[in-house]
Amino acid sequence: MSKINVAIIGGTGYTGVELIRLLSRHPHVTISHLTSRSEKGRVVSEIFPSLLGVCDVVYSDMTDDVMDEIGKACDVVFFATPHGVAMSHTPRLIAQRVKVIDLGADFRLQDLGEFGKWYGLEHTCPDVLAEAVYGLPEIHREKIKSAKVIANPGCYPTTAILGLKPVIDTQNSADKPLILPNIIIDAKSGVSGAGRNAKMNLLFSELSDNFSAYGVAGHRHTPEISQGVHAFLGSKFTQKVRFVPHLVPMIRGMFSTIHLTLTDDGKALNWQEIFEKVYQNEPFVDVLAKGVLPDTRSVRASNRLKIAVHQDDDALTVLVVQDNLVKGASGQAVQNMNILCGFDEMCGLGVDFGGCAVVP
Amino acid sequence: MSKINVAIIGGTGYTGVELIRLLSRHPHVTISHLTSRSEKGRVVSEIFPSLLGVCDVVYSDMTDDVMDEIGKACDVVFFATPHGVAMSHTPRLIAQRVKVIDLGADFRLQDLGEFGKWYGLEHTCPDVLAEAVYGLPEIHREKIKSAKVIANPGCYPTTAILGLKPVIDTQNSADKPLILPNIIIDAKSGVSGAGRNAKMNLLFSELSDNFSAYGVAGHRHTPEISQGVHAFLGSKFTQKVRFVPHLVPMIRGMFSTIHLTLTDDGKALNWQEIFEKVYQNEPFVDVLAKGVLPDTRSVRASNRLKIAVHQDDDALTVLVVQDNLVKGASGQAVQNMNILCGFDEMCGLGVDFGGCAVVP
Amino acid sequence: MSKINVAIIGGTGYTGVELIRLLSRHPHVTISHLTSRSEKGRVVSEIFPSLLGVCDVVYSDMTDDVMDEIGKACDVVFFATPHGVAMSHTPRLIAQRVKVIDLGADFRLQDLGEFGKWYGLEHTCPDVLAEAVYGLPEIHREKIKSAKVIANPGCYPTTAILGLKPVIDTQNSADKPLILPNIIIDAKSGVSGAGRNAKMNLLFSELSDNFSAYGVAGHRHTPEISQGVHAFLGSKFTQKVRFVPHLVPMIRGMFSTIHLTLTDDGKALNWQEIFEKVYQNEPFVDVLAKGVLPDTRSVRASNRLKIAVHQDDDALTVLVVQDNLVKGASGQAVQNMNILCGFDEMCGLGVDFGGCAVVP
Amino acid sequence: MSKINVAIIGGTGYTGVELIRLLSRHPHVTISHLTSRSEKGRVVSEIFPSLLGVCDVVYSDMTDDVMDEIGKACDVVFFATPHGVAMSHTPRLIAQRVKVIDLGADFRLQDLGEFGKWYGLEHTCPDVLAEAVYGLPEIHREKIKSAKVIANPGCYPTTAILGLKPVIDTQNSADKPLILPNIIIDAKSGVSGAGRNAKMNLLFSELSDNFSAYGVAGHRHTPEISQGVHAFLGSKFTQKVRFVPHLVPMIRGMFSTIHLTLTDDGKALNWQEIFEKVYQNEPFVDVLAKGVLPDTRSVRASNRLKIAVHQDDDALTVLVVQDNLVKGASGQAVQNMNILCGFDEMCGLGVDFGGCAVVP
Repeated sequence: MSKINVAIIGGTGYTGVELIRLLSRHPHVTISHLTSRSEKGRVVSEIFPSLLGVCDVVYSDMTDDVMDEIGKACDVVFFATPHGVAMSHTPRLIAQRVKVIDLGADFRLQDLGEFGKWYGLEHTCPDVLAEAVYGLPEIHREKIKSAKVIANPGCYPTTAILGLKPVIDTQNSADKPLILPNIIIDAKSGVSGAGRNAKMNLLFSELSDNFSAYGVAGHRHTPEISQGVHAFLGSKFTQKVRFVPHLVPMIRGMFSTIHLTLTDDGKALNWQEIFEKVYQNEPFVDVLAKGVLPDTRSVRASNRLKIAVHQDDDALTVLVVQDNLVKGASGQAVQNMNILCGFDEMCGLGVDFGGCAVVP
Repeated sequence: MSKINVAIIGGTGYTGVELIRLLSRHPHVTISHLTSRSEKGRVVSEIFPSLLGVCDVVYSDMTDDVMDEIGKACDVVFFATPHGVAMSHTPRLIAQRVKVIDLGADFRLQDLGEFGKWYGLEHTCPDVLAEAVYGLPEIHREKIKSAKVIANPGCYPTTAILGLKPVIDTQNSADKPLILPNIIIDAKSGVSGAGRNAKMNLLFSELSDNFSAYGVAGHRHTPEISQGVHAFLGSKFTQKVRFVPHLVPMIRGMFSTIHLTLTDDGKALNWQEIFEKVYQNEPFVDVLAKGVLPDTRSVRASNRLKIAVHQDDDALTVLVVQDNLVKGASGQAVQNMNILCGFDEMCGLGVDFGGCAVVP
Repeated sequence: MSKINVAIIGGTGYTGVELIRLLSRHPHVTISHLTSRSEKGRVVSEIFPSLLGVCDVVYSDMTDDVMDEIGKACDVVFFATPHGVAMSHTPRLIAQRVKVIDLGADFRLQDLGEFGKWYGLEHTCPDVLAEAVYGLPEIHREKIKSAKVIANPGCYPTTAILGLKPVIDTQNSADKPLILPNIIIDAKSGVSGAGRNAKMNLLFSELSDNFSAYGVAGHRHTPEISQGVHAFLGSKFTQKVRFVPHLVPMIRGMFSTIHLTLTDDGKALNWQEIFEKVYQNEPFVDVLAKGVLPDTRSVRASNRLKIAVHQDDDALTVLVVQDNLVKGASGQAVQNMNILCGFDEMCGLGVDFGGCAVVP
Repeated sequence: MSKINVAIIGGTGYTGVELIRLLSRHPHVTISHLTSRSEKGRVVSEIFPSLLGVCDVVYSDMTDDVMDEIGKACDVVFFATPHGVAMSHTPRLIAQRVKVIDLGADFRLQDLGEFGKWYGLEHTCPDVLAEAVYGLPEIHREKIKSAKVIANPGCYPTTAILGLKPVIDTQNSADKPLILPNIIIDAKSGVSGAGRNAKMNLLFSELSDNFSAYGVAGHRHTPEISQGVHAFLGSKFTQKVRFVPHLVPMIRGMFSTIHLTLTDDGKALNWQEIFEKVYQNEPFVDVLAKGVLPDTRSVRASNRLKIAVHQDDDALTVLVVQDNLVKGASGQAVQNMNILCGFDEMCGLGVDFGGCAVVP
């Protein structure tokens, strides 16, 4: 199988470099282009010494000429950029028959009003947005195969939607309500989720040995989770999603604790079995054995997402862990690319590579 | 004012040493006795070098003779020991007219069945237990003044009960339900809460850069929180307490996120004002201004507990932080001692001492 | 004793806020003015919530008017600013009979050429520089008493000069060389030493679980250490100081390992005794018992500096720890102020306050 | 090429599990046996959840029967055990024509007196010891090919000997001394180097936000480094090795700063070029470009060791980083196995696998 060429737009942030790490070892991929405004002209391993011998691409500036060259040379373009960047380049790229995977937020929210409200921008290509596929393989695998543009999900929504899918699916095929209104997602993220930005509140001396909440009054991932529950999973009910994110003094890892309250009908079900059945064939989702609790260490640098289910009378607690930079971002983007390009879905992500962090 | 003599039983654990730190600077206290089985015969500053020049007491073994001497010499005895120790010595101490403050769990649960179920022991002095006062000054200040035995609250229950008090109080004086059933407490603790025990799961290499849940199937603080809500705050309703604790890779600090769902009657109230009013005269509880979110750093080494209230339609989120070793343990024990002995409640704990950790 | 008024110029950096922490509890001091360009108009506790109830000064901008007012109102002005700021204001302040303590570098290097070479600036008040006293109390206590301007030492130089003082003193009074040429200082600092600056290389995700060297080709503290050894301690020999700093993934703390090689004459001495004797009356320098090794934890938030001496044949290893923000910066500044103003040298810094971090 | 069978004795410590991580992906290896006293009968992924799907071997007890079975079934046996274990089994294993790679210390020190002095044991198979090869491929590659028993080097000695090799080699072929007596190695290690042992001093709450020295009075790696310099590198001079280890609050990573003082002849050489030339063909040793400083992050989870050389007049500073669990232990053991078995030396360790931790 010949190799495809890919470009990474925004190749110096944490998700961009994580893409380099994963794709530089992917057997069917050549990274042909990397862009960075701040580091243009420098070879990637000069800035990230551990990539010495792994990737020696030189960063280009994101000029029109470079983007045009990328459109001609590449099969897939990844945007690992702040919102607003991908939507300004995507129409032209898809006209050049290039597939686009956006790790930013430009194509995540289908509702234009919600997009404008949460991101403070008017969407510049609503027609492209309408065609974009929300790239959560566990719910949209078929659609991803033929997508032109993939909206790679946010990190929190990945944990929330996959943690809730067995519940919503079961509820949708039941006659009576199984859970009481309101879904509470108490989420905790490592600091790399905040990006590689020189901000005071992200300094080591501010965050180490400290734990905080943020975005309680409103976080951009709330409407994305809500869209996942209602539009994509098609929940018959109108449960509101309550989402409270917290910041953990660690680099990688995300832990979402989902608190649900069961009705009497819901209490009668065996949720451990339901979860196991829903995910039995999913290569990257593990349902832990009853009584086993997850930690973020166990998925460090891996594309796996692990779920524990705890049922106690009317209380259903779903605990979900992932590496926010892998299944929560760049690993999922590679998984999407694999599906899109007809590669094995685990290619470059499987146990033959897997997490390096078995022990510390 | 002459000084009182105090003993600390179990003076090498984190709460015991925190007591030494606080009491060695208390103007009305002399630490006359420290016990430790493992370190008997050694001076405290040999083991904890930062106490050099601060405290030079020699650890005694906890023999009958030593306990008898303590009973004669001391006004107050603190137990910073695993459960089971305090109850075996307390009857004799109170017979010697010594006040006992137990930082362990022996006198926390009034229900003997619950005690046996959660701690796996039969209680050896139920009559003493019946007289013991649960030492949460913000709800039991008057009772503490005349107590013989004080059960110093657990760290999680302190955050949960104080975070819920304004809600339960308001509910109790209302005609209609203000919150829907079930109280969800998603709590996060620094590692020192697990004590100074040589256990594999507490090693640096296991916990650093890692976040986990534990005790989801049942934690000893759940019945204690429930007792606080129902017996002490006297909740008219039978909301179940759901408590899920997590472990944060930091040394000190505790963050409890309490998720409540309001009825229409509950939605009509201004909870920010209610919380501010309830705690307006409490020296160690701060209700943060609307929109301000807490972090554990801001209470490091301090006896303050800070609460933020966020209300959004039917969602009421209460965020509580404290230092688990201070307001969650040893600081609260000193606060109880101050009340018990008629000292100023803030003595040795006030802003003139306060948290040392303004900056990192 | 009436209180003095002090101002802190640059009150939002780590050393500035550490000064607020220490001075707000000092019995003879009122903090009357704080300046900050970025936070002017805001009350200090709004930015640093743990100062709520401790200090409620509002930040002023550093305008001419404000500086003039400070000159009239204050007895002592602390500069916790980058180099270049203090020297532009100090001549006027001393004309107003205000004492200046500069925590920056403007008055540390007496050699104008060295100052220009290392700081890239021409000195604007060499006459003031000539009168300034290098504020290391353990070597300049008498001079500090009558100083107009005090150059508060750098953090690394404090550990190096105090770690070397007993060696240089002994050598100076000996007939023959005691140590072979070249003094090697291998130093390790917590991250707060790099300041509260929004720089990419200071982010949590860059520094956590990472250890690095920096400034190997030249660090501004090298000439300051060299000046200390040769000019202040008056070393008869011309040993070159070799200084290699490293960055440790912790917030506070500094550890300097000084490697010396003894001559046969040097080997004949008992260095443990020599160190103990030199520092026997120093309130803030502890020489650890033979065989005891220091850690940074034991001096966290304390103004103490601890020294261990290990002698093995011709190898003399001196290990020095301090809190870089206290004895390495703001605590030493308060110690200097105490000497300057005739207060007890330990006032506000003594064991009655001490380190809060006995346990974690 | 058919696969070889390997056993790992002591498969629950950090180096044992790191071997599992590396070998389970090695194309020419089947892990057929794992032993553990504490976890016998349990499947490895039950204890280390991230190995789920990667390795499903069940731990055996280390009984005579099991060891006999291993001797019959395996081609290579790795000992990841405390000293004393490997030497009691190795004679029998080599009689069964099994190759032994000991990650412990039983075969590192050729001098029996030194072994006894530092490890407090009498060696039980000095004849096997005499034949054992010190498995540092960069100096003993040829000997390793035909070894029966390989002593896998200690972590600190790996950095020290490889950091010194270009210096000693150059000195050995020179007429005059190039460096002054005494070699100073100031080393810093992550906590995993202390092993997975339930000890109080390794707790998170003891080590986080703390930096300390240890073993200053004598560390077992000192004679091993000395043996490397004098016996293996054949230094003509009698420089003493001074070794001071420190503990860094991070999990993985080792940083050794080697301080050398040059003679006039030594000053005349270009040490950057010398180092580059010595290691130009080594697959796992990188000499960094002039002026570039290493950090431990850049080799996390990788078998690479990186060296920076800084020369300033008579000061030569060599800075060496590695992952203590990979090049400092298990990765180097796999490298030794590759050489021993005639596999490509980089097999299972190359850039196609490499470090996973490009970014955090």
